[in-house]
Amino acid sequence: MPRFPETTSTLDAVGGAVFSSLAGRLARHRGTVYPLHVGDTWLEPAEGCRMQDLTIDEHPGMHRYSSPQGLPGLIDAVVERSRKRMGVTTERSSVLIAAGATGALGAVVGSIVEPGDEVLVLAPYWPLITGIVRCVHGEPVAVPFLGEVDSAESAVEAVQGRLSSKTVALYLSTPNNPTGKVFPASWVDALVDWAVSIGLWVVSDEVYEDYVYRGEHAYARSRAPQQAFSVHSFSKAFGMAGNRCGYVVGPESVMAALKKVSTHAFYSTPTASQLAALRALDGRGDAWVEAIRPRYQALGDAAAERLEVPAPEGGTFLFVDTRDRLDERGLIGFLQDCAGRGLFLAPGPSFGDYPSHVRICFTCAEPDVVKAGVDVLADMLSR
Amino acid sequence: MPRFPETTSTLDAVGGAVFSSLAGRLARHRGTVYPLHVGDTWLEPAEGCRMQDLTIDEHPGMHRYSSPQGLPGLIDAVVERSRKRMGVTTERSSVLIAAGATGALGAVVGSIVEPGDEVLVLAPYWPLITGIVRCVHGEPVAVPFLGEVDSAESAVEAVQGRLSSKTVALYLSTPNNPTGKVFPASWVDALVDWAVSIGLWVVSDEVYEDYVYRGEHAYARSRAPQQAFSVHSFSKAFGMAGNRCGYVVGPESVMAALKKVSTHAFYSTPTASQLAALRALDGRGDAWVEAIRPRYQALGDAAAERLEVPAPEGGTFLFVDTRDRLDERGLIGFLQDCAGRGLFLAPGPSFGDYPSHVRICFTCAEPDVVKAGVDVLADMLSR
Repeated sequence: MPRFPETTSTLDAVGGAVFSSLAGRLARHRGTVYPLHVGDTWLEPAEGCRMQDLTIDEHPGMHRYSSPQGLPGLIDAVVERSRKRMGVTTERSSVLIAAGATGALGAVVGSIVEPGDEVLVLAPYWPLITGIVRCVHGEPVAVPFLGEVDSAESAVEAVQGRLSSKTVALYLSTPNNPTGKVFPASWVDALVDWAVSIGLWVVSDEVYEDYVYRGEHAYARSRAPQQAFSVHSFSKAFGMAGNRCGYVVGPESVMAALKKVSTHAFYSTPTASQLAALRALDGRGDAWVEAIRPRYQALGDAAAERLEVPAPEGGTFLFVDTRDRLDERGLIGFLQDCAGRGLFLAPGPSFGDYPSHVRICFTCAEPDVVKAGVDVLADMLSR
Repeated sequence: MPRFPETTSTLDAVGGAVFSSLAGRLARHRGTVYPLHVGDTWLEPAEGCRMQDLTIDEHPGMHRYSSPQGLPGLIDAVVERSRKRMGVTTERSSVLIAAGATGALGAVVGSIVEPGDEVLVLAPYWPLITGIVRCVHGEPVAVPFLGEVDSAESAVEAVQGRLSSKTVALYLSTPNNPTGKVFPASWVDALVDWAVSIGLWVVSDEVYEDYVYRGEHAYARSRAPQQAFSVHSFSKAFGMAGNRCGYVVGPESVMAALKKVSTHAFYSTPTASQLAALRALDGRGDAWVEAIRPRYQALGDAAAERLEVPAPEGGTFLFVDTRDRLDERGLIGFLQDCAGRGLFLAPGPSFGDYPSHVRICFTCAEPDVVKAGVDVLADMLSR
């Protein structure tokens, strides 16, 4: 019982923002900044899909609440997209529009995790997922995965090894943040089959589905629509992260529970953001993606080459091991030295047990800024 | 442990949307609809504060993430407003911009409530507060309050009577949703002093602070800035509920915990919504309020007179007892009969132990629609 002036002890284990430890330095920095720690894009959304395009003449009442499930037109568009992409039956009642993929994942986790329950989280992982589990008093259990696993069989062995009687769900993200790994379909299928066979929920974070450069994205929900949640983001797809609009498609039987959680977390998704997403889904967003994807890939490939790491298979990140350049100060010293040169990086420990890794986003700023920042990092790594 | 296909049992006690039981009827209704169950406004936000006014030329990158705490300019404006209105020291570190007051309250409750903890909730209450407490496995304890209490002393007696060893916080809302009651300063002061004396947090929901028609709004935080959270909404103030932007001002020592919760619930508040709020705070919003407040009051007074209930002291609602018109079907029968005539009302049980009350919002639709809806209700009540 956290009586005044204490707060709930569960939060002690929850990190602040990914980057909080270096935020002060960033605010004080004079000179050029290379903010490669941010996961975002330097581009504006497609024309016609910006806030300035949404008028009260065309959308009277557009500053009023929408339904907590989402705007009917947007739900319909998501249903159509999901059917087409995932190849499985999808009804309107399987869709929840949410405050970004973050809000969607919060609704999923809040619906299936009780205090003390464990969620298997494939590492390295998107940093907020562990805090999302902890905020409802669940326990994230990291599964060392990428870099450890090289086949469907070893993927299943990895998760099996961390299973306990308290496990209720498996979380994966592909294309992966932070590594840029695109899970082969055989891995996704094997993991989903395993989860289904022992009655675990599957929570599949697929916000970078549109940014695959090598291989092909596999939808967990295609394999088990009755048991898998598929989480998506207009933020990542269409360059509108600040709009806070994403969605989850899941088993009809539990979507009422998800809507309860989301209603109490943020009530409804911003109406204007949903209207912008709906415009993007009319073809303008996909055209934007088609035009942008090769640019993202070229940026990722160039950054990878400069840093002497494998090219990304998807997404907008590289995860780089700095082990051979750390001194007795460890990673924090390296990050501080980088910050001294204006280069800001996301620290590996935010993504799991990665004491010497850093994550960079190669789409976070104008390409010349990213290139210059990558040059600084390469120099710091003597590469 | 809610193994597939179950969801967390805590949610069983959480209601869906306030109005979910009649939503299907509303969707199917043919003819004129009087949607008095919705808490919103028929007005568009002030000119200059609409989405169409926010251009990428003026705000490059405005579709990108903002900081999880909020846009620096908006935080500064909230600090200034809070200092002026509450008359107490307020630093930037005491402010969190959130996904509406709902998101702000979620961040507060998530920070101070652990599983099994109790929160005293003055009834009748804003419907979502009980679900917000339950979503983190806390227990809301309703305190029969409005209609029961007539002095500062009896206010304290009421809360004292529901105190237990598990109580961690006191929630109040003034101007009150659903009753329109504006708590006298003496009540607020006495409740805050009592909470402080026994180490409870105070959570004060003040989203209707700008809509006071009789009496004067009293800020809980003015009395105990070290222990009280003051929750506000640009939605209600400036007619932008769909933007999902509100804020909480609280004790500096715990705001880092709140930011952890909000970061994991919705990451950041929509950037465009914050820009719109910032524009409203430059004077345009207050001018809008000054122009609108007398209209809201006139609408509330007219509705109250027609329904033969006391005029509202503040807010946008009336809470009406239908007891003498219920038949053996109870309230649901009455609500169904109203729905048959196109009139939709929020049911009393959403607000506490009020089996025969209904709530109407007198600003939810064009004034002539509201007036016609109120006429239907008056007719149903033979008034």
